[in-house]
This record gives sequence, structure tokens and C-alpha cells, in this order.
Amino acid sequence: MPIFKAPVDDTLFILNDVLGLERYHNLPGFADATPDMVAAIVGEAARLAEEELFPINLSGDQEGCTRHDDGTVTTPAGFRKAFDLYREGGWLGLAAPEEFGGQGLPYTLHTAVGEFLSAANMSLMMYPGLTQGAIAAILEHGSEEQKRTYLPKMVEGTWTGTMNLTEPHCGTDLGLLRTKAVPNGDGSHRISGQKIFISAGEHDMAENIIHLVLARIEGAPEGVKGISLFIVPKFKLNDDGQPGEGNGVSCGAIEEKMGIHGNSTCVMNYDEATGYLIGAENKGLSAMFVMMNEARLAVGMQGLAISEIAYQNAANYARDRLQGRSLSGVKAPDQKADPIIVHPDVRRTLMTIKAFNEAGRALTLWTALKSDIAHRSGNEQERQAADDILSLMTPILKGVLTDKGFDHTVMAQQVFGGHGYIEEHGMSQYVRDARIAMIYEGANGIQALDLVGRKLAMNGGRAVMALFKEIGDFCEGNRGDDRLSGYTKALKKGLNDLQAATMWFMQNAMAKPDNAGAGSTDYMHLCGLVVLGYMWAKIAKTAEDKLAAGETAQADYLKNKLITARFFMERILPETALRKARIETGADTLMALDAAAF
Amino acid sequence: MPIFKAPVDDTLFILNDVLGLERYHNLPGFADATPDMVAAIVGEAARLAEEELFPINLSGDQEGCTRHDDGTVTTPAGFRKAFDLYREGGWLGLAAPEEFGGQGLPYTLHTAVGEFLSAANMSLMMYPGLTQGAIAAILEHGSEEQKRTYLPKMVEGTWTGTMNLTEPHCGTDLGLLRTKAVPNGDGSHRISGQKIFISAGEHDMAENIIHLVLARIEGAPEGVKGISLFIVPKFKLNDDGQPGEGNGVSCGAIEEKMGIHGNSTCVMNYDEATGYLIGAENKGLSAMFVMMNEARLAVGMQGLAISEIAYQNAANYARDRLQGRSLSGVKAPDQKADPIIVHPDVRRTLMTIKAFNEAGRALTLWTALKSDIAHRSGNEQERQAADDILSLMTPILKGVLTDKGFDHTVMAQQVFGGHGYIEEHGMSQYVRDARIAMIYEGANGIQALDLVGRKLAMNGGRAVMALFKEIGDFCEGNRGDDRLSGYTKALKKGLNDLQAATMWFMQNAMAKPDNAGAGSTDYMHLCGLVVLGYMWAKIAKTAEDKLAAGETAQADYLKNKLITARFFMERILPETALRKARIETGADTLMALDAAAF
Repeated sequence: MPIFKAPVDDTLFILNDVLGLERYHNLPGFADATPDMVAAIVGEAARLAEEELFPINLSGDQEGCTRHDDGTVTTPAGFRKAFDLYREGGWLGLAAPEEFGGQGLPYTLHTAVGEFLSAANMSLMMYPGLTQGAIAAILEHGSEEQKRTYLPKMVEGTWTGTMNLTEPHCGTDLGLLRTKAVPNGDGSHRISGQKIFISAGEHDMAENIIHLVLARIEGAPEGVKGISLFIVPKFKLNDDGQPGEGNGVSCGAIEEKMGIHGNSTCVMNYDEATGYLIGAENKGLSAMFVMMNEARLAVGMQGLAISEIAYQNAANYARDRLQGRSLSGVKAPDQKADPIIVHPDVRRTLMTIKAFNEAGRALTLWTALKSDIAHRSGNEQERQAADDILSLMTPILKGVLTDKGFDHTVMAQQVFGGHGYIEEHGMSQYVRDARIAMIYEGANGIQALDLVGRKLAMNGGRAVMALFKEIGDFCEGNRGDDRLSGYTKALKKGLNDLQAATMWFMQNAMAKPDNAGAGSTDYMHLCGLVVLGYMWAKIAKTAEDKLAAGETAQADYLKNKLITARFFMERILPETALRKARIETGADTLMALDAAAF
Repeated sequence: MPIFKAPVDDTLFILNDVLGLERYHNLPGFADATPDMVAAIVGEAARLAEEELFPINLSGDQEGCTRHDDGTVTTPAGFRKAFDLYREGGWLGLAAPEEFGGQGLPYTLHTAVGEFLSAANMSLMMYPGLTQGAIAAILEHGSEEQKRTYLPKMVEGTWTGTMNLTEPHCGTDLGLLRTKAVPNGDGSHRISGQKIFISAGEHDMAENIIHLVLARIEGAPEGVKGISLFIVPKFKLNDDGQPGEGNGVSCGAIEEKMGIHGNSTCVMNYDEATGYLIGAENKGLSAMFVMMNEARLAVGMQGLAISEIAYQNAANYARDRLQGRSLSGVKAPDQKADPIIVHPDVRRTLMTIKAFNEAGRALTLWTALKSDIAHRSGNEQERQAADDILSLMTPILKGVLTDKGFDHTVMAQQVFGGHGYIEEHGMSQYVRDARIAMIYEGANGIQALDLVGRKLAMNGGRAVMALFKEIGDFCEGNRGDDRLSGYTKALKKGLNDLQAATMWFMQNAMAKPDNAGAGSTDYMHLCGLVVLGYMWAKIAKTAEDKLAAGETAQADYLKNKLITARFFMERILPETALRKARIETGADTLMALDAAAF
């Protein structure tokens, strides 16, 4: 049977030691996030994840969601109770504003516990996850009345939210969408159309579901300039603000999909449903992007989370499974065979995932901290600098952590041999669940295009230059430190490749945009490698400093960090050269064939 | 809905033009394989694959196999009829000896059509696939009587075969197996024990099932030196050779697995079942390896096959799906959006898979031809040289074609965006089906170890030296040819990396075997890259020669080959440098952590 233990120590090490969360006590909400408080919250989340969410993960996959003839949907056994516990614990509002019932704590902390919860049960956590995105959009673009009407219930989790973008003929290219909105004359609209792939579209865990729906107001311009965003509640609200009569919105079907069976992915039919415009007419895309950006960071975190639970199970199996003997001599003479963790190829697998997860965790929290600074700092310059990095990192986190996270579930499954292919061990579920993260909230190819097509050029390249400077300064500043020179040398090499690839784009992609598209995915991964390498260098420095300061309780833990950092620098980071070489081949060969020749 | 068209033209181009099958007319069975005959057989296999096997692939996945309370198993709707057609067409015996009812045609041809059939329906083709392995073992190790008794029915497909190796506690390490055999005194044995993961273990498509079962004869030595192989028919044979009373063998359960739902993967219980020793006592492993090697080539081919069908569907979708506009200007002005095949990142995906599939096909057939030469040539030296390459290539084909084949199903699925995650489009099935090929018949980590631990050192490195010489000679021999210099230069660079990595093993892995294990998977892929590059160089030469000779009918096809070859050399082959660099880091960092630290 699968196992899961939330990586509490690692998370606290990153928050307290690597990122030094205490240094940010001046930011609103951070004063409460003392190390003791952080440890208490992280520990409580670990308990919820391990004891309540994880035990119903595999059964939720096997049972799936059921749509009944009346369009209602039943979630798998145990989901309601677990969601109740999540809601009662106030987890949904951990980082939400206090005026709407939240606790106003750092988003960084929300992200840290989010990893545990998503690892334990990704499908279940998608219900509140989509709600977070909807909350963010209403917070930023909703009217005061809309905020007062919807946010308190959503922040407490009594109502959940959804994002309704996709239509059968229209995914990435939202300009093609057809769902229409007709004014009722009273400020509201009648919404009609079909949306597909709507996660958490219908279920039995909330008193109301607040759908945020992209639609085109009659007579609006064609394309993306004619799209508006609407709030469409499942149940219209009575005058007292409580859910009343049904609205013209229903779940037409649940999709049969590869994974995340515990989440109800719905075809949603809107038939003159009453909707309320959020933000300005025809400006729906910008409101939608608030949800999207929030969601993209969360999806990157999912990639990490599933990689973590898959890794833990693989490591556990590798320690237990007796098969064959070590190449370097018998290791367990009292057993009929050695545990397979003695085999270098199994080690390679485990080290590869471990080195990714630990740096991925640091990267996720580092980026979440940028988000906190961008939203909460009183200093305009600080806010802007943080927002630059946040914007730049969003597609990288989403694309790289989900691509690699998926790869790692496959590698972890491989450790189990034939047993990994059997559903009862859970490894198949991790692969199938992790697969969606590469697709939704903008397929990873779109993330790569967002990175090279928009984020690189943003404000004359200000963000990427700031990132290069930060990493370059780190290498330079620690150049004389013999303890760190191995790490910084490797990192500098990776950074050089990244800078050269960036330069290549500047010289070759302006006049010929296909050159940017042809290298976009390689560039995204090149960035990912370098920022993960940067995280390892920071972790190594933290570990060396703590060891030098006489830290003994955690000495083994810190030494293992140094070994894992070395592994990353030796085995993983050198991939930057290949990525750079591919980018520099450009688009010519790639685009040479006629479409019919494929 | 999914589509499939067997790549007939490509297969014929490789067989006739690249490999020059006609040049081998002196080999037994090859005289009949004239280009006309080959085209007729390949065409007929394509029809069977497209019209009979493919239409029940997705439905077979959705329906799966059903075990009834009496232990019988029903295969998905349509499987029986399709298997009847396959059997009636004589496909199972295409390359089997004529004395047992086969047609004695080249194994190369069998492999060529096998790709089509496996692409169309991998689960269905596993039933005859396992039978092939069992036939091979009986042919090589069975007594004359056993051959006469079992082979004719198996070659015609009236009876099918299985391989029973794995037990719950024993997969790779067969020395641990516990199934026991007790002599009956009449030459037969009573077999008792439990086997798991038995593909095609029980089903409704054959009159009898011939299980080949590894077991330990009472009192035999411990470990692999005490293992024997037995024939255990589902129904014991009457004196007239027809199936009679049941034997003590039954299907205890069907595994719930990630994919290949159309194949019944069984827990098989042996309860004093009558078994007949095949080969010598305690020499079961060598007989088993005959099945294994045959099966490993077939599994590599499956990796290619699923990559091909996934590719075709992705290419088709990319031509049809309208979404967004080309970066280099509108391409379909009369449509609301361009087909997504205009986007470089979609091209990158398709070109990557295409470049792999076409070289993978050439490599599979080139290796199959080595097998034909090794088994059929009258010249001892030729046989040995071919067998060397065949032995060396077996783990490479199995490991690389299934690792990459799986990766490519994932890439193809990504082209579909969210639609790829929905079961109805079939892309999820390809991913789930392809996944098993990395695991069964020896997980790919075992293939890599077989390569570096046994195949490299075999006969003082004779095989790998011969391979280096063949590729090196090709580069040297075409160095002066301007048309080919781009390809040969890139190939030579890859070969240099491979030679350097091989040298590194020689210098560093003898004294410290963990250094071999630590680099084994990278080395396997390094070999794969170079031999695939070699295939592209051969294909490019063939294409250039045909174009120079005035070939016009196929001119576009040949020019596209040159473009795809260039893509491989530019984008894929340079990965050799990364693989080499990883190998040269050795085992130290990899092995440094305590097992408990994972």
C-alpha cells in the first residue's frame, strides 16, 4: 500500500534557513509567521494531509465521481468529510484578507502547506484550488458588492469556485469562444453556451458553486477584444444572500479521463443562466489572467507534490524489495538478496528525483515569497522587482515543475518493476494524475511561448536581466569561498548557457519569430535548470554556514544536502549545454516539411 | 476518433532500398521474399491491421478482460474474431520452420508486419507474441517429440503459449523462485506454486494454452542453478494429441493495471499440475533466455509501434485543429485560426517523434536482418558476426525504443491539449499501453545492466568493436561525399562520445563495478542515439543515391527523408555529449547517501 509523509523538516529548513522568512516581518501578515507559528501550521497541515486526505487518495481514484440523471454529482467516499475538515481548519482562507474572513498569513505559507495537501490528494485539493483562483479574480476585479456577496463564503469554503474558459473548438485561442451573454436590462446578463473540461464544475461538497465564465456580450468585437467575465452562481442568491432557486447551469456529463478521477471534470451547459459582469465589459481576459497566474503557480506546485509522493514510495520500495546482489559485494548477507537500493541505477533514479524535489520546493517557496513581496511590500521599487521575477517565473514554474514532475512519477513507477504497473500500488495513479498538470492552465508549450514571447521582452528585458544579475552576483560573491566553488562554478556555466541562448534569441528571433517558437520549450527548461541550480547553490551555502556555525542536531541532514547539491551540479545541470545547442539550431529544419508530409 | 494507417511505403523503402533485402536471396527463405512478394505480404498485413485489429483497440481498452467465477476469462468484444483472421492468414507462422507448418519467410519480414499489427492493437498482438516466444524455446530446447506434439498447433495459432517466470517475491532475481516440481516417476513432474503477471495466461481464443513454467525440482541447488523449465498445458493431451482433461492450472485473478487492458494479465496458480521438463534439469534459465531474447526484440518493436500510432494521431490533429495564428503571419486567412501545425513548438514535437520512428523502424529491421543471418547463414563467420551484433543490440533495442517510444506517446498526447487527457481520443491509451514495454521482459534498467555488464565485455568486446568499426567505416567511406558530410560529421561526433564513454568504462568500471551501474542507463541511450544516427546516415545516403539516379516518383518522399535526417543530426544526436558527461561522473556521489536518507 502507498505511503506518504509530509516533508515537514525540509519545508521548515527552506522557509526558516534558506529564505529566512523572519527577515520579512515588516510585510503585512508576516509578523504572525514566527518560526513557532510556522512550525505549528506546517505540522497541522502535515497531519491533515497524512491522516485525512492521503487515505482516500487511491480509493478516490478507483471510485471516481458519479453523475446522476438529474445532473448532480457525487464525489468519492470520504471526500465530503475530508473537505469538511479542510474547511473547518480554515485552510482555504490561510492567506486570504482578514476582512473577508481569511487569516492574512503569507501566501508563501499557503504554498508550503499546499504541497503537502496536493501530494496527499491532488484530486480533492483541486476543489479548493479552483476556488482560490476565483477568489483572486473577484478580489482584484470584482465590485465592492461582489466581494461582500461572494468572498466570505468562498474564503470559508462553504461555496466553491470554478473557471469556465474552454469550449470544444476553443482552448488556447480564447478569441474563438462562442458562449454568449445577453443583457437583461437590470445589469445582469443571460449566459448561454457550452463549456468543457470544467474542473470541480459540479459536486456535493459545497452549498453553492460560483462559476466564473468567459462569454461574449451580444454585439461585442470579434476575437479576444470582445470577451467578458461573468459570475454565474449555481444557485441564485436570495435577498438574504443565501442560495435560493437554481440558475440555468447544469453539468451535462463528466469526462472519462486518464487520471484525477476524484475530481469531477464537467461539461457545463449554460442555458440563459443569470450572470453578473465582473470587471469591465470586453475586458474579461485581464480578469481571467489573474485566476490563471494564480492557478499556474499552484499547478507547478502540483507537479512537485506528485513527484514527492511518487519519490517517497519508490524510495520506500527500494529499501524493502530484496532482489539480486550489489555489484560491489553482498550488502545483506543474512537475507536471500540485497534491497534494490544498493543498485547504482536505482540510486540514479532516486537521486534524480530527490535533487529535483528539494530544489523545486525551494524554488516554489522562493517564488511564492516574491508574490508576497509583490502584493504586500510598502516599497514600490521592491514590489516591482518582485513582480518582475514573479511574472518571469510563473511559466517556468508551471512548465518545468510539471514536465519534470511527471517524468519523475514515471521514473518512480519504474523502481517498482511490474508492480508499478498494477493499480493497487498507487504508482500508476501518480503518473496518470501528474499528466494533467502538463496540460491544464495553459499547456506547457504555451507556457514556453509566454516565456519567450512575452516575459523575456517585458519592459525591455528588465526581469530576465535582474534574474541574471541576482544569480551572477551570487556566484561572484561566493567565488572566493572554497566550500562553495564547486557549486558556483557549475552554476556559472549553466548561467552562461542561459545568457548565450537569450542573446541568440535577441539576435535571431526579432526578425524571425519562428526562431523563438522553435527554441521555446528548450529555453523554458534551460531557465528551469539554472534556477533550480541557483536554489541548490543557495541551499549548499545555507548548509555550509550552519555546519560552520556548529549545528549538530541537523548535521547529517545538512551533509546530505551537500551531497545532493553535488549530484545536481554533476548530473543534471550540464543539460544546459544541450538545451542551448538545440535553441541555436533555429527554426529552418523544423519548419521545412509540408504539413502533409507528417 | 483515432486513426491508423500502416506505414507501408516507409517499410518497403527500408526493406528494399536501405537494407537491400534482395541481396540476401541466398539465405533460406529469402529467395521467396522478392520485392513483389514482400509488397504483397506487407500490404495484406496493413489491411489486417487497419481494418480488423485497429477498430477494436480503443473498445478493447475500455472493456478489458473479464474473469468469471470458474476461472475462465473472456477477452473484449471482437478479439476472438480478429484473432481468427490473424490465425487463418497464417501470420503466426510467417517465419516459423516449414516442417512445423510455418512459411519459413524471413524474420525480418515478420518484424516488419509485426510493427503494423502491434501499433493497431498491442493488447491483441500480445497473445500471439507470447506464443512466438514459447515456440522459439521449444524449437531450440525441446525434444523431437515435444516439437512434434506442440509446435504445429502453436505455429498455426490453435494453441497459444505463455512465459511463467515472475512470482510475488521474485522478478528480476529468478534465483529466488519457489514454484516446485516433484517427479511423478514417469518422466513428468507435478508443478505447484503461484506465478504473477502472466500475459495471456488465460483467455477464450485458443483450444489450449501451453504454459512454459520455471520451477525448482525438489532437491535442486539453491539460486539460479536449480531452475528448470517445464511445459504445462492448460489441458492435458489425449493419446491422439488433442486437448483432453484439465490440468491443475488455473487463473486466480486478473491484475488491475494501468494499460493493455485487452490482454489478460493473470495470477496463475499451479496445484500439482502435470509438467514436462524442457531441456536439461536445472538448465531452465538458458531455455528461458531464448524466449526472453526473442521477446525483447518484439517489445522494442512495440515501443516503436505505439510511438507510430500516437504520432499519426498527433500529426492528424495538428493539421485539423484550428487555434491561434502563426508567429510568421496568418497561414489560413479563410479560417478563424491557423491549424496548430504552423506553430514551431508543435513541429518540434512532431519532428522529434518522426525522426525517431523512421530511424527506429530502420534499426528494428536492420537488427532483425542480423537475426536472420545469425540463424540462417551457411557461413560460420557471417553467423557469428551477425549474432554478435544481435546480442549487443537486443538490450539497446528493448531499452531505447521503449523508453523513447513511451516519451513520444506523451509528447503526442500533449499535442491534443486537454483532449489528449480524455479517453475517447485514444491518446491516453497509447501512453498507458506503451508504459508496460519499459517494464516487462526485463525492466529497462536491467537491459542497461545487461548491456554494460555482459554484452560489452562479451568475447573481449568483439561485438562493440565491430559496431564501432562498421559505423566508423561508414563515416570514413563517405567523408569525401559533399552530399553526406553534414550527416557523417555529426555521426562521427556521436561515435566519438560513445567510444570515449566505452573507454571510460574500461578504465574505471573493472575495479569498481558501481561505476558501470551508475552509467548504465546513460550508456544504453548513448548507444541508441548513435545507432539511430547511423540509420539516418544510411537512409540519407540511400535517398541521395536514388535522387542522383533520377528517381522522380518518390522524389518528395526522399527529400523529406533528408530534412528529417538533418533534424535528427541537429537536435537529437547532440544529446550524446550529455550522456557521456554523466557517465564520466561515476558512482561516488550517487552512492554517497545512506539508504535511510532517501
